[in-house]
Amino acid sequence: MQTTNLNRVEPADLEYLRSFIPAKRMLVGADISPDYAHDELGGVKSAPDVLIRVQSAEEVSKILSYANKRLLPVVTRGAGTGLVGGAVAVMGGIMIETTPMNRILELDEQNMTVTVEPGVLLMDLAKYVQERGYMYPPDPGETSATIGGNISTNAGGMRAVKYGVTRDYVLSLTAVLPTGEIETFGSKVVKNSSGYSIKDLLIGSEGTLAVIVSATLKIIPFPKEIVSLLAPFPTFQAAVSTVPELIRSGTDPTAVEFLTREVISLAEDYLGKRFPRIDGDTALLLTYDGFSAQEVRERMDRASELCIERGAYDVYIVDTEERRASVWTARGAFLEAIKSSTTEFDECDVVVPRSKVVDFTECINELSGKLGLRIPYFGHAGDGNLHVYFCRDGLDEDVWGSKLQEGFDALYSRAVELGGMVSGEHGIGFAKREYLAKRLGPTQMELMRRIKKAFDPNGVLNPQKVCT
Amino acid sequence: MQTTNLNRVEPADLEYLRSFIPAKRMLVGADISPDYAHDELGGVKSAPDVLIRVQSAEEVSKILSYANKRLLPVVTRGAGTGLVGGAVAVMGGIMIETTPMNRILELDEQNMTVTVEPGVLLMDLAKYVQERGYMYPPDPGETSATIGGNISTNAGGMRAVKYGVTRDYVLSLTAVLPTGEIETFGSKVVKNSSGYSIKDLLIGSEGTLAVIVSATLKIIPFPKEIVSLLAPFPTFQAAVSTVPELIRSGTDPTAVEFLTREVISLAEDYLGKRFPRIDGDTALLLTYDGFSAQEVRERMDRASELCIERGAYDVYIVDTEERRASVWTARGAFLEAIKSSTTEFDECDVVVPRSKVVDFTECINELSGKLGLRIPYFGHAGDGNLHVYFCRDGLDEDVWGSKLQEGFDALYSRAVELGGMVSGEHGIGFAKREYLAKRLGPTQMELMRRIKKAFDPNGVLNPQKVCT
Repeated sequence: MQTTNLNRVEPADLEYLRSFIPAKRMLVGADISPDYAHDELGGVKSAPDVLIRVQSAEEVSKILSYANKRLLPVVTRGAGTGLVGGAVAVMGGIMIETTPMNRILELDEQNMTVTVEPGVLLMDLAKYVQERGYMYPPDPGETSATIGGNISTNAGGMRAVKYGVTRDYVLSLTAVLPTGEIETFGSKVVKNSSGYSIKDLLIGSEGTLAVIVSATLKIIPFPKEIVSLLAPFPTFQAAVSTVPELIRSGTDPTAVEFLTREVISLAEDYLGKRFPRIDGDTALLLTYDGFSAQEVRERMDRASELCIERGAYDVYIVDTEERRASVWTARGAFLEAIKSSTTEFDECDVVVPRSKVVDFTECINELSGKLGLRIPYFGHAGDGNLHVYFCRDGLDEDVWGSKLQEGFDALYSRAVELGGMVSGEHGIGFAKREYLAKRLGPTQMELMRRIKKAFDPNGVLNPQKVCT
Repeated sequence: MQTTNLNRVEPADLEYLRSFIPAKRMLVGADISPDYAHDELGGVKSAPDVLIRVQSAEEVSKILSYANKRLLPVVTRGAGTGLVGGAVAVMGGIMIETTPMNRILELDEQNMTVTVEPGVLLMDLAKYVQERGYMYPPDPGETSATIGGNISTNAGGMRAVKYGVTRDYVLSLTAVLPTGEIETFGSKVVKNSSGYSIKDLLIGSEGTLAVIVSATLKIIPFPKEIVSLLAPFPTFQAAVSTVPELIRSGTDPTAVEFLTREVISLAEDYLGKRFPRIDGDTALLLTYDGFSAQEVRERMDRASELCIERGAYDVYIVDTEERRASVWTARGAFLEAIKSSTTEFDECDVVVPRSKVVDFTECINELSGKLGLRIPYFGHAGDGNLHVYFCRDGLDEDVWGSKLQEGFDALYSRAVELGGMVSGEHGIGFAKREYLAKRLGPTQMELMRRIKKAFDPNGVLNPQKVCT
């Protein structure tokens, strides 16, 4: 899609925007913190011309209809925790920051829904509903992300094994179209067969089709009992090949993570705290939840038997507060630990069928040897979603760039061979467009561009992202 | 969208189609059974010019690319069990019947998926996976429907309360675009954030965007224990207002149906069999499933307590084979029983937020009195999805037509006021387009038409359905 027709923000544009946005919520040029020129990954850098901290759907509507007429790029940003440059203003223009829209608008206990503005942080949503006896099941590791960002990438998280991903909890979205209309897609109903599901199209569309201004989410009763198990295995293969058996056992685990010795050590160094002492190369971290202690116990017993049958050294119940803190703090720190262990990094968020995780990691290990690069990884064994990190360490910029390119090419090719996808939960953004196009081929990319055009004929919303 | 540009099938077209479709799978004109001119509802009638029983994706591709060039309408039909005229050839043209494509292509026990052709019947899929220890959770009452039809309407069924709807179990779809390309959308992965979810757009699109030629579905381990409870309440209100409490209790029911005295009697007459003798006006029929008898018992005990606290006369466990057969046979026969009780009927498949079911049924009861029409209803109390039947009985055609129009207008208006949707699981098809347009408004309908155009620029696929 043509994006060269877009304009930069000029003084007359600022004047118009100032007519309805107070000065303290609108920053221009050098007044914008350099943080707004990149996301958590940092590899994609470009500053917006103007940053507007929006407070209402009406403001968003006025900005969008103006930008659409003036052909100004508009990029929506939540907390900036993305990893693919999705919320970077690669063509300048207007950046809409949604974090001031952080109200919880309604808790409907009869229908078990919560309606929120897009800038609500995941950690605040989790706390709010938990205090009232409910759970919002999706739980991406980055809890300082906004719910708007989570919806825009269809974020998954650890509990996806049992509970599914963000898509499964979004009942309706109110969004502003590039032409300024404020529309609600979906409603507070679980079953719906009323025309094309535009709501599902917006989920995961990374701010390229519309700007989300509120969402009604499904919540569930908070489980009465939650217990984790740690099962160390002699080898990665022994650990991960147990996972399909666990899923088939009917024990219905909430989460199934794998933790490698390498990444555990990085977390220990980063946190300055020891992980519980375990033997072997890889551990599975399982969580079970349920309606009663008895019920969870039955399921855990069966899971433990299975792990032992498949070669686990032992199965520890993560039941003391101390042990729980040490295990989950380590798991939560993996990304930061890897980041702090190196000078620069880039990541690959592939997802492969659950049965193909071992095959895929063999490719990572080979590649690490071949390229002479550290490539630590961790991930969601239960759903085949791996987070793989290329670490620059002491490499020169040129060498790093070419090794990275070779590494990405090899990993994404292997993921495709194994029937996987380019991204499980981080999205495509700016950085992974080439790999998406390779995976899906020209017909699907063209379909996406036509869908994009159906929403955004002038191409002003988040240009050069996903399929444009 | 313009549909007047479409052509009828001419002798030269038949000649071309005969070049790759054997005569026994291609019927023309009077050789086509009148059954193919309507669906289960019967209200929308129009015969296709030619009926082709397809056997492969390649055949579908050849038919579509030809029809697209020649501007011939193409309607895809599964088992013809629809209730909104979605699979009726309202503009003639080519009807593709998918029932010969009824192979189960793969059972992948490692990844817990089953890959099927679109013509597989729901009952056959259920049996196939159950014999191997698995469950395909969606279970619409009409088990002689095809899975292709189920996907095309995002069918729900009784277990949606716990397990969700068809959308939640479709991991990937292979579909033929109107221009003939055969594309696979999605893959065998549960988490995906790789571009717009075209798969989710195809689900529920009623054959207007592409023709599904295979689907990979998620399956789960068959629950070790399944038990139903029957709880009779003095009034409809007492029964149905208990439902939100049951959902909030954390007991996680698989199904929550309501059965009114009126509809139970119709089923008894139709089947010539007695339903278990129960007091009161309305019963709740609950199902629980789980990992062990003990676990299901704990959950059922809590649910039973709740029902009694809320005024249930008693709670019966549906545990003997005889009782199970009598309860579920009756529940399964509701639609047929209503159909056979009258001369003609039309239906309304609304869905409202769970807490609004009582409000909505008050509107039905008032309307029944006001119009002097029998309007029996039954439904899925757990997810607010009601099936409401207007019965013609002895009315003249004109009177029937005008009462029906008035009734539909009133019910759909009320559903919209209550935050509901026009269809929970039967779709929009031909018959409900006006109500969809009223519910969603011009902006959303225009968006849908633009999406339609992105897939089907010539408008050949299932014209005059959903949004065209």
